[in-house]
Amino acid sequence: MNKLYVIGIGPGEYEQMTLRAIHALEQSDVIIGYTVYVDLVREHFLEKEFLTTPMTKEADRCVMAFEEAQKGKTVSMICSGDAGVYGMAGLMYEIGVRYPEVELEIIPGVTAATGGAAVLGAPLIHDFCLISLSDLLTPWEKIEQRLLMAAKGDFSIVLYNPSSKKRADYLKKACDLMLTYKSGKTVCGIVSNIGRDGESCRVMSLEELRDTAVDMFTTVFIGNSQTRELEGKMVTPRGYRNV
Amino acid sequence: MNKLYVIGIGPGEYEQMTLRAIHALEQSDVIIGYTVYVDLVREHFLEKEFLTTPMTKEADRCVMAFEEAQKGKTVSMICSGDAGVYGMAGLMYEIGVRYPEVELEIIPGVTAATGGAAVLGAPLIHDFCLISLSDLLTPWEKIEQRLLMAAKGDFSIVLYNPSSKKRADYLKKACDLMLTYKSGKTVCGIVSNIGRDGESCRVMSLEELRDTAVDMFTTVFIGNSQTRELEGKMVTPRGYRNV
Repeated sequence: MNKLYVIGIGPGEYEQMTLRAIHALEQSDVIIGYTVYVDLVREHFLEKEFLTTPMTKEADRCVMAFEEAQKGKTVSMICSGDAGVYGMAGLMYEIGVRYPEVELEIIPGVTAATGGAAVLGAPLIHDFCLISLSDLLTPWEKIEQRLLMAAKGDFSIVLYNPSSKKRADYLKKACDLMLTYKSGKTVCGIVSNIGRDGESCRVMSLEELRDTAVDMFTTVFIGNSQTRELEGKMVTPRGYRNV
Repeated sequence: MNKLYVIGIGPGEYEQMTLRAIHALEQSDVIIGYTVYVDLVREHFLEKEFLTTPMTKEADRCVMAFEEAQKGKTVSMICSGDAGVYGMAGLMYEIGVRYPEVELEIIPGVTAATGGAAVLGAPLIHDFCLISLSDLLTPWEKIEQRLLMAAKGDFSIVLYNPSSKKRADYLKKACDLMLTYKSGKTVCGIVSNIGRDGESCRVMSLEELRDTAVDMFTTVFIGNSQTRELEGKMVTPRGYRNV
C-alpha cells in the first residue's frame, strides 16, 4: 500500500508541530505543499524532495501528491494549521477516489483558532464557531446567514480569511451583521502572524473591531456575552453559573 | 518571574503532543492535572513531581498550580486536547489575578474536534461550531438555542460531552433540535477514544445518530448540507461551488 500523509503543521514554527507530524515527515521521500508552507519546514528536512504549487492550484497539488505516491514513494502533503480545517484533507479524499491503491492518513495539527486563542488568553473556553469570510467558494448570503446565527446563538466566533485585497470591507460588513445580536461592547481580539516572526495581538471592543483594518495573516476573535478583558487578556468563562 | 505553563497535551498519545508542549514539560519541576491526564504523560517524564486532583476540583487544581509556582518552581498544568477549548486556560487567568508575580503561558494542542475529524475523514473542512452538551455550568436553554442556531446556519457541528450517566438522553434531545433545520439524511460520525487504546469511529445518518448510545469518551460530528460519505469517510467539501 502506498502511503500518503496529509499533515497539519500548525501555525508555523517547528516547535508547534506534533511529534506525529515530525515523524511522518521524517518517513517521507517527498514533501508537497503551497510554497509558503514548504519554506516553513524545509530547513528541518533538508534531505527530502520538495514539490510546490502556487496558492490557487490546490487540485493540481493533490493530483501531484497521488501521482508521486503511486510511484511507490512515501509522500507528505502539508497544510498550515490543521489539514482538516479549511485545509486539504477533504479535497484529498475527493481526488483519492481515483487512486484506490494509495492509503491516506490525516495528521491533525494546531489550527489558527486555538493557536491564536493561546496568544490572546482564553477566548474559546466555551462553545464557539469558525467562519471563513472568503466568498471564493461560498455564496456571501451563506456567510451572512452563519454570522447572524452564530451571533444570535451567543457563540464566541473566530473569523478565518477576514480580509484580502478584493474583500477590504468584509470584516466591517461581518461586524455590522454580528452587531444585530451582539453588543458593541463585546470583547474581541485580533492576532497576526500566529507562531511566526512578528506575532502580535490586540484586544478591543466589537465597535472598535468594526473600524479596524486587518490583513490576510490575521485571525479575528469575537467573544460571547460573558467574555471579559482581564489584565489585557481576552478570557471567556467556562459557563454561565459560578460553581 | 515564576513560570506556569498551561498545556494542551492533545488527544492522549505522546505522539500527538507538540514539541513545544514536550519542551515545556521537560523544563518543569512539577506537573499538575486531573488524574487520568497525568497518567497519560507520567511514563515520559518519570523524574518530575506529579500532583493530581479529581475531576470536579478544577479551582483547587488551579490554586495548587499557582502556589507551587510561587515557591519558585516551574510548573505545568496539563489538560487533554487544547487547554483553551473547554479547558483550564480561562480559569487559570481568572485565578491568576491573585498571583501577579506568576507568568502564565498557554501552549495549544490538538483538540478532540480536529483530532476526531482526522479519524473520521474530513468533516470540518468548512465552517463549524463546537457545542458542549454539559449543562453543569450552562443553562440547558442556552445549549438548546445554540443547537438550533448552528443547525439553521447549516454549520457542521461537533458535540463535546455528548453524554454522562445523568444525561443519557441529551444526544437524542440535541438531534431532535437539529432535525428542525437539518435533514435526517445528514451525514454524521462518532469517534471514541481519540488517539488512545480502543480508538474507533462510525459514520451514520442524523436519524441513526438520534438512536445511538454514546459514552463520555465519544465526540460527535454532524455534517452540513454538503457533507458526504465517501468510501466510509465523512467528507465536507471546501465550499458550495466547484472551482
